[in-house]
This record gives sequence, C-alpha cells and structure tokens, in this order.
Amino acid sequence: MTSLPAPAEGPEQPRRRGRRPAGEDRRGDILAAAREEFARRGFDGATLRGIARAAGVDPRLVHHYFEGKDDVFTAAFELPVRPQDVVDPVLAPGPDGIGERLVRLFLSVWDSPPGRQRIVALLSASLTSEAGARMLREFLTREVFARIVAALRADDPELRASLAASQMMGLVVARYVVALEPLASLEPDDVVEVIGPTLQTYLAGTLRTAR
Amino acid sequence: MTSLPAPAEGPEQPRRRGRRPAGEDRRGDILAAAREEFARRGFDGATLRGIARAAGVDPRLVHHYFEGKDDVFTAAFELPVRPQDVVDPVLAPGPDGIGERLVRLFLSVWDSPPGRQRIVALLSASLTSEAGARMLREFLTREVFARIVAALRADDPELRASLAASQMMGLVVARYVVALEPLASLEPDDVVEVIGPTLQTYLAGTLRTAR
Repeated sequence: MTSLPAPAEGPEQPRRRGRRPAGEDRRGDILAAAREEFARRGFDGATLRGIARAAGVDPRLVHHYFEGKDDVFTAAFELPVRPQDVVDPVLAPGPDGIGERLVRLFLSVWDSPPGRQRIVALLSASLTSEAGARMLREFLTREVFARIVAALRADDPELRASLAASQMMGLVVARYVVALEPLASLEPDDVVEVIGPTLQTYLAGTLRTAR
Repeated sequence: MTSLPAPAEGPEQPRRRGRRPAGEDRRGDILAAAREEFARRGFDGATLRGIARAAGVDPRLVHHYFEGKDDVFTAAFELPVRPQDVVDPVLAPGPDGIGERLVRLFLSVWDSPPGRQRIVALLSASLTSEAGARMLREFLTREVFARIVAALRADDPELRASLAASQMMGLVVARYVVALEPLASLEPDDVVEVIGPTLQTYLAGTLRTAR
C-alpha cells in the first residue's frame, strides 16, 4: 500500500456536532450527505444547512468548499461541468442560433466518457425511483432551463423548456443508451445540424404551427 | 381462494420434448421463453424455432398461438398493441401530416396506464442492460421505423428514423418519467401540435437546414 496523502485542511475549524476523528475527508462526508438529501428531498427541497446537518459539519464548511447548492449537486453527482458555467456563455449572444449552440454544448459534455456515464446515470436514477425523477426534474428546471428561458424572454417559457428537454433527453437515450444508428455514431457537427433547428424552434420559434 | 380457471386447450397436441404435466399453460411457457430469448439474443437474433425449443414445445404450437415474431414480442412484453396494426394505417395516407398522425397514435397508446407502464418498462430495460438496449433498438428499428421509412421513400431513411425515435423516446422520458411541466399534463391535442411538426421534419422534411 502506498502512503496516504496528507488530509486536506479546511481554512477554519468548524464547531463539531459529533465526535469525529481528526483529518478525515469532510468534503467527502458533505457530498455523501448531499446525495442522500437530494434523493430524499429533491433539488428544491434540499438546503445547504440540511446537508451540513446530515454531514455533521458546520454550515460554514459547506460554504467554504462549495459556491452554492448547484455546485454541491454537480460535485455530488460528479457532473463534468456546473450548468451555469457552460449555459450562461451559450445564452449570451442572444436567441439567434441558440438551438445549435446548445446542442453543440451538450454534445461536448456528453460525448466524453465521464459525461456520457453521468448523464446516463442521472437518467437511470429517474427511471428507477420517483425521488430520482423528482431530483432530475427540479435540477433541470431550476439550473438549466430556467436560465435559458429567462434569457430568451419568449412566450410560453416553461413549455419551451420542457420541449427542449424532451429532445435532449431523447438524444441521450437514442445516441448513448439504445445506440440507434446512424445517430449514435454521427459526428457532433452533423448532430448539431439535424437537431439544432428543432431546439431553435422549441426555444425561440413559433410554436403550435402544425403543418 | 377462488377456484382456478380451466386450463387453456391447444388445438393440437404437439410432440413433447420434455416431461410436462398435462393441461399446463403452454402459451405462458412460450412467452416466458420468449422474454429470455429476446433478452439474450436481441429481437433480430431470436427465432420462433429457438423460442419453441426453449419453451419445450413444438414450433407449430408457437405458430398456432402467434402470427409471427413481432406478435410474440408484443405479447411477451404485454405491449398494448402490435406495431404493424397501428403503424400501417397511419402510413397509408402518405407523407402529408405523417408527423402529427404518428404523435397522436403513440399518445393514444402511451397515455393509457398500461401503455405508459409498458413503454417505461421497455425504456428501463434498455438503461439497465446492454441486452435490454439491443432488444429495444432492434425492435424499434425493424418493427416500427423500418415500416415508416419504407412508406415515406425519403432520403437518409435510417437517419430520419433514428431522429424521430430520439424525439419520441424523449417525449416518454419528459412526459411520463421525469414529468416535466407543462409537457407532462398537456392535452394530447396540444402535444400533437407542438411535437408533430418536429416529427414531420425528421421524417419527410428537409434535413440539415440549420437556421
């Protein structure tokens, strides 16, 4: 066995709620507690205070390690990126081309092995329990689509967000899970070309124009 | 306990391959064997002969109970309808409005409790095992989308089929699993109006016309 790395030092010593040995992985404790709290209470119901309590640490320690609830969620579920870090830049140029930019962004995350593994794991969690479905629903709604919809200022924003989510989750299922060809092995640029216009319509186009 | 119903009688007595008590549920045996064969060999690899062998019955008995492999699959997984029975009539009028008619058809099946339960179960199976994913992939490709694509005679038929499947599987995830509002509780007519044009483009429109 190799020697263990030196334990990470917090910048301050929080008041201890329980008896805990010195030098343990408190960040890991917080993440384990966060996974339980998110699964039990959903994304909206979970709080940094509640996560700290479940982890047996001072809330200030949670704030030391993480910038906010979305940051804890991203780390707890090992998402490759924090949504706001990637979604906000994509929104900045405005509605023109938003569909293509979003598809390109998601593919850049999901086409990597860890990204693919994590999005499929989140989707699996939503299919195996009501709590998992609620967690994914609330996370998507608050952290991803609320940002997009607010930036677009279009009519029917919630409907637009849920339609866009349906196409993107369907892309995950078709490309990564069921592996439908040729969509599964299409180059990212080609996926952007065929799916981008759909997202563009859902997010910024005219809805209810059947035929 | 109520008395058991009289056992179903087959029209002919097949040669027995193993020792089996008289009057048992041979149709049930065939379906149990079919579920195993489909999961092990996929939809394409499974054969009626192999299913009969696994069930310990004469192949003629399988042909007596079921019209073909798709019929066995539909019964084995308790799908509410056999794809060809519902897809073919939707294709008959031609490409105009095919997107709307298909969305309306799928919703009429999936919005019922058994339909919803079964499509979510198939999707779950695809997320939990490679065999489940393969089974769903091959079934969708051969029994649903091959029919649609052949009827349309459009360019890039496989790409069109996989794109349409991505949107429809995404609708299942968004509407029935993750329950994203307002899509989850939208009236079927309204879902047809917003998703129908997407399927129309994927199946019969001009692809790769980004922006």
